[in-house]
Amino acid sequence: MKNIDQTNKKKFMRRAIQLSKEKMLSNKGGPFGAVIVQDEEIISEGFNQVTSLNDPTAHAEIIAIRNACRKLNSYHLIGTEIYCSCEPCPMCLSTIYWAHIEKVYYANSSKDAQHIGFDDKHIFNELTKDKSQREIPIIQILPEEGKAVFNAWIEKLDKTLY
Amino acid sequence: MKNIDQTNKKKFMRRAIQLSKEKMLSNKGGPFGAVIVQDEEIISEGFNQVTSLNDPTAHAEIIAIRNACRKLNSYHLIGTEIYCSCEPCPMCLSTIYWAHIEKVYYANSSKDAQHIGFDDKHIFNELTKDKSQREIPIIQILPEEGKAVFNAWIEKLDKTLY
Repeated sequence: MKNIDQTNKKKFMRRAIQLSKEKMLSNKGGPFGAVIVQDEEIISEGFNQVTSLNDPTAHAEIIAIRNACRKLNSYHLIGTEIYCSCEPCPMCLSTIYWAHIEKVYYANSSKDAQHIGFDDKHIFNELTKDKSQREIPIIQILPEEGKAVFNAWIEKLDKTLY
Repeated sequence: MKNIDQTNKKKFMRRAIQLSKEKMLSNKGGPFGAVIVQDEEIISEGFNQVTSLNDPTAHAEIIAIRNACRKLNSYHLIGTEIYCSCEPCPMCLSTIYWAHIEKVYYANSSKDAQHIGFDDKHIFNELTKDKSQREIPIIQILPEEGKAVFNAWIEKLDKTLY
């Protein structure tokens, strides 16, 4: 991954911010945009569409990541950077890790988002709690039957790891 | 939400486990399945398709959530429960919170998943770290330009909150 110069960084972030504004004003969803950059070029874009698509996963970052993966024909985005108009929520940040994106730039902070009604701090807090203390109960059942499938995975010879 | 009796709980989890096995054996992805239940009926299903769709977000839970939202025409899943053949990763757990699912059942634990090569513990750890300590660098730029869009959101009269 080349080192992206400061002028380009601003250009990429301004595109993410522009998406956050335009798409919010046209009622696609909340004010959030993102672009993914490889070799100093934008390879994909995304903007929040939670309310217009009825999809709680349709955050700007998730859309941009899915678009980039489609373009690169890969479930990994090694060698890319993501520019987000707002600091990623725990869902998006986890996805950034699964996708192996290498650097994250953001404009608005999570605290800024909280001030306008998007509270992901609550989710961060829940994730760090012991399972027994979480607000949404999480209960284990049939562990032996689940385990049998994991054993079948271990024994499978033609599996694709990720 | 009705209280789901023990027999049904086992039935729903067995379906999630069945999906995890069948779809893994047919090379759709990792050994993970999930179903979403409302009023003692399965309203959606999902299975891991990360490697077959080239989509790092295509975990069983995310697919099941997106399918359920499409079916109910809503970005919230209040009044539903999710049955996952494995404890949700941080991406999926965050999505469960965004979707307002009310209860989570799982068979295999995160530790079981780690033993077969799916390490989400690492992502949980990264999320709890201070930003400056994370493996993937996360850097703020152009906060003022981002903030201007958040102010526009506050002033927007016809917005849909979520």
